[in-house]
Amino acid sequence: MDKKYSEMSREELLRAKEELLQIYDSFKAEGHRLNISRGVPSHEQLELSMGMLDILHSDADYMTENGIDTRNYGCLDGIPEAKRLMADVMETRPDNVIIFCDSSLNIMYDLISKSMTHGVMGSTPWCKLDKVKFLCPVPGYDRHFAITEHFGIEMINVPLNDDGPDMDIVEKLVSEDAAIKGIWCVPKYSNPTGCVYSKEVVDRFAHLKPAAEDFRIFWDNAYNVHHLDMNHPAVIPEILDECRRAGNPDLVYKFGSFSKISFSGSSIAALATSANNIADVKSSMKIQTIGHNKINQLRHAMFFKNAQGVMAHMAKHAVLLKPKFDMVISILEKRLGGLDIATWTNPQGGYFVSFTTLPGCAKKVVGMMKDAGVIMTEAGATYPYHNDPQDSNIRIAPSSASLDDLKMAVTILTVAVKICSIDLYLEA
Amino acid sequence: MDKKYSEMSREELLRAKEELLQIYDSFKAEGHRLNISRGVPSHEQLELSMGMLDILHSDADYMTENGIDTRNYGCLDGIPEAKRLMADVMETRPDNVIIFCDSSLNIMYDLISKSMTHGVMGSTPWCKLDKVKFLCPVPGYDRHFAITEHFGIEMINVPLNDDGPDMDIVEKLVSEDAAIKGIWCVPKYSNPTGCVYSKEVVDRFAHLKPAAEDFRIFWDNAYNVHHLDMNHPAVIPEILDECRRAGNPDLVYKFGSFSKISFSGSSIAALATSANNIADVKSSMKIQTIGHNKINQLRHAMFFKNAQGVMAHMAKHAVLLKPKFDMVISILEKRLGGLDIATWTNPQGGYFVSFTTLPGCAKKVVGMMKDAGVIMTEAGATYPYHNDPQDSNIRIAPSSASLDDLKMAVTILTVAVKICSIDLYLEA
Repeated sequence: MDKKYSEMSREELLRAKEELLQIYDSFKAEGHRLNISRGVPSHEQLELSMGMLDILHSDADYMTENGIDTRNYGCLDGIPEAKRLMADVMETRPDNVIIFCDSSLNIMYDLISKSMTHGVMGSTPWCKLDKVKFLCPVPGYDRHFAITEHFGIEMINVPLNDDGPDMDIVEKLVSEDAAIKGIWCVPKYSNPTGCVYSKEVVDRFAHLKPAAEDFRIFWDNAYNVHHLDMNHPAVIPEILDECRRAGNPDLVYKFGSFSKISFSGSSIAALATSANNIADVKSSMKIQTIGHNKINQLRHAMFFKNAQGVMAHMAKHAVLLKPKFDMVISILEKRLGGLDIATWTNPQGGYFVSFTTLPGCAKKVVGMMKDAGVIMTEAGATYPYHNDPQDSNIRIAPSSASLDDLKMAVTILTVAVKICSIDLYLEA
Repeated sequence: MDKKYSEMSREELLRAKEELLQIYDSFKAEGHRLNISRGVPSHEQLELSMGMLDILHSDADYMTENGIDTRNYGCLDGIPEAKRLMADVMETRPDNVIIFCDSSLNIMYDLISKSMTHGVMGSTPWCKLDKVKFLCPVPGYDRHFAITEHFGIEMINVPLNDDGPDMDIVEKLVSEDAAIKGIWCVPKYSNPTGCVYSKEVVDRFAHLKPAAEDFRIFWDNAYNVHHLDMNHPAVIPEILDECRRAGNPDLVYKFGSFSKISFSGSSIAALATSANNIADVKSSMKIQTIGHNKINQLRHAMFFKNAQGVMAHMAKHAVLLKPKFDMVISILEKRLGGLDIATWTNPQGGYFVSFTTLPGCAKKVVGMMKDAGVIMTEAGATYPYHNDPQDSNIRIAPSSASLDDLKMAVTILTVAVKICSIDLYLEA
C-alpha cells in the first residue's frame, strides 16, 4: 500500500506529484478519446435485443388479444399484452399501468408539466402558486433535477444514505411545508450511488403525512431488474401496495422503462399508480394523444413475454456489465485503497459507481480527465443547480466503454485524483 | 327529382314522413353496427405499409449515415435520414425540422403546454396572463379545439370559407387583440370541409401583423399529400418560405405526420419552423427527452426513401379512398340533390366530407344514426366547446368502412336528414 499523503513531508508530496504528472502527461500524449459521461448500454448489450427487430414481421399477427389492430389509431393506455408485461416487471397489476412511448423521462416531465398547468387531482395548478418545492436526495440524477429546475421549482437537498434518503429530514420537511410537492427517488441501485432503499425507508415513505394534498413521490424504478449478480438481486417492498396499506393510495407515481432492457430511447415506458391518479393523468393524456406506438408495444410483449423472460434477458446484460464494474472497483481499490483521499460505492446493480474525492477536487479531476481525452459526467451534475457544495462527487459510468478503455480511463482517474489530493495537502 | 319539402302541403309532408320512417325502421331492424366517427385508415390501407415491418430486420444496418446507432440513446431532433424525408414531404429544409414520435397531435399539445409554462421565445408564460385566446376557423378539427379548451384558452369562431378562413376577420382580430396568441389551421383538405387555402389566403397569413409578439399560426398540414386524384393534387404556397419573405420568419409552426401514410399512431411526426422557434422548442425538449424512437425513424426513411416514394405510396391510398368518397357524393346527390335541405362538400383530398343540414337538425340526425347502429362524429364536435350555433354540421368519415357499409350508412343518413327536415317544415 502506498504511504498516505497525510503522512508525507512537503518534499515527498512534491516528488510524488512530479512522478504522477509524468504518468498523467504520458496518458495525455496517447491521445485518448473516450466518452463515459452517460449511462448508456454498450454495443454488445444492444445486440442482445436484435431478435426484436424480426419478431413482428409482415406475416406475423398484429392484432392484440382483445382485437385491437396495433397498426391503427386508438388504445390510449396501452395494449393488454404490454400492460401485463409491464405490470409483471413492475410488480403491480395491469389496471394500475399506463404504457407510454420511448422513455420514462418524458412521462415524468409531462406529469410535472401537467401539475403546473392543471394541478393534481383537482388541486390548484402549481403555476398559480407563489412557490413550489421538491426534495432532491443527493447525489442524484441530473435529468430529474433538470426537469424541476426547468419549471422553476425550488429544489432542496436531502442527504442520501446507504439505505435511502434521510427519512427524518424528509418526514419533517414534507409534514411542515405545503409548498413541497414532490420528491425524486431512485429506490433501487440509485443513480449514482447504487444504494438500495431499505424496507424501513420504503415503509416510512408509504406512511408520509405531507402537508400538501398534492404531494407525490416520484418513484423512478429505472434499475428495477438491472442486477449485476442475478443470484443476489436486491428486493424492496412494492411501494404502491405499501402506500395502499398505509392509507396513502394516491401518494406515489412509479416509473418503469425498457430503455436499458431493449433499445434505449426506442422502447416502451410506463407509469404505475393508483386508480385515482390514473384517471387524473388520463384526463390530460386523452387530449395529448390518441395513443402511443402499439406496434412497438406488441413487439416488446412478443419478445419478452413476461417478467421471467425479462429476467433471463437481464442475466445476459449482467454477464456483460459485471466485469466492467468489477474492474472499476478493483482498480480503485488497488490504486486508491487506504490512502484516505477518496471513497466509492460498490453497487450490486444499476449503471453507476459514485466516487467521492476530498472536498474541492471533483471539478479539477473531471477537467484533467477531459484534458486527457476522457469525458466524464460534469462535476456537480449529481446535485440540483449543478452545485455540489463539497465539489467532491464524480459519477463513473462503466457500461458503454470496452474493458480496455475502461481500464485506461479509471487508471487516469486515480492518477488525477492523487494529483489533486496532493495539491490540497500542499496548499494546507 | 323529388318534390321539394318547401313546396309540399302538410298532408304531403306527413305522408312522406310516414314512408321515410318505415324505411328508417327497416334499416334499424337490420341491426347494423358501424363506427364511422373518426378519420381512420381502413384495413386495406394499413396493408400497404406492411413491408415496413420487415425492412429493418436484425441483419440490416441500424447505423445512420452520420454514424449514430439508432438502437441507443441520443439524437434529440431526429436522424438525418428522417429529417430529410420529412423535410422533402413538408417542402422545407431538414434544418427546419424536428422529428417527434407517434403523432403530430402530441407536438401541438406540447407546444401549447410549453407556451403556458414558459412562453414563446422569451415572452410571458401564458399561464401568467389574465386571458389567452385562439382563433378557430369553423367547422374545424375537434382535437385541436380540445387542446385549447383543456388549457383554458378562450376560443373565437372564425368562418371558414371555400378558400380558407375569412381573412378580413382574422387580420382585424389579431392586429387588435394581444390576447390572441394563435390560430388553428388545416390548410389543405381541411378537416372537415376539405377546403384548400388559396394563394391569397396563404399570402395574407404570411403578412399578418399580430398585436401579440408571441402569436403563432398552428399550421397543421395533416393532409399535405393525401390527394384523392393524384393527377390533380392541390398545391398551396409553402408557408415557412412565405412568412420569411414577408419578414415574419417566426410566425408559424407547421406540422406533418406519417400517421395516415404508414401506421396510425405508430409513425413519425414533425414540426417544421424557423431557426429561432427550433431553438426555443429544443430548450424545453432537451429537458423532456433524450430523443425519440430512432429505429422507427430509420424504418420510415428506408421504406419511403423520399417525397417521390411517399407520393407513389399515397397513390395506392387514393385508389382505395376515392371510390368511397365518390360513393358518398353520388348517394348524397342522388337522394338529396335539389331538395334544398342539405349541402355538402366534394373534397379532392383528406379524410372527410362536411355535411350541412337545415338549422337545428344535426344533433337529431346523428342521434337517429346512432339509434340505427351507425356511430358518426358527435354533432357539434366540429365547433369549439362542442357548440355548433346552427346545430347543422355533420362530419362524414368515409375512410374506414367498406363500400357496402358506407352505402348503407349514407343511405340511412339521407333518410334521417329528410325526416328531420320534414319535422322542421311541419313545425313551421
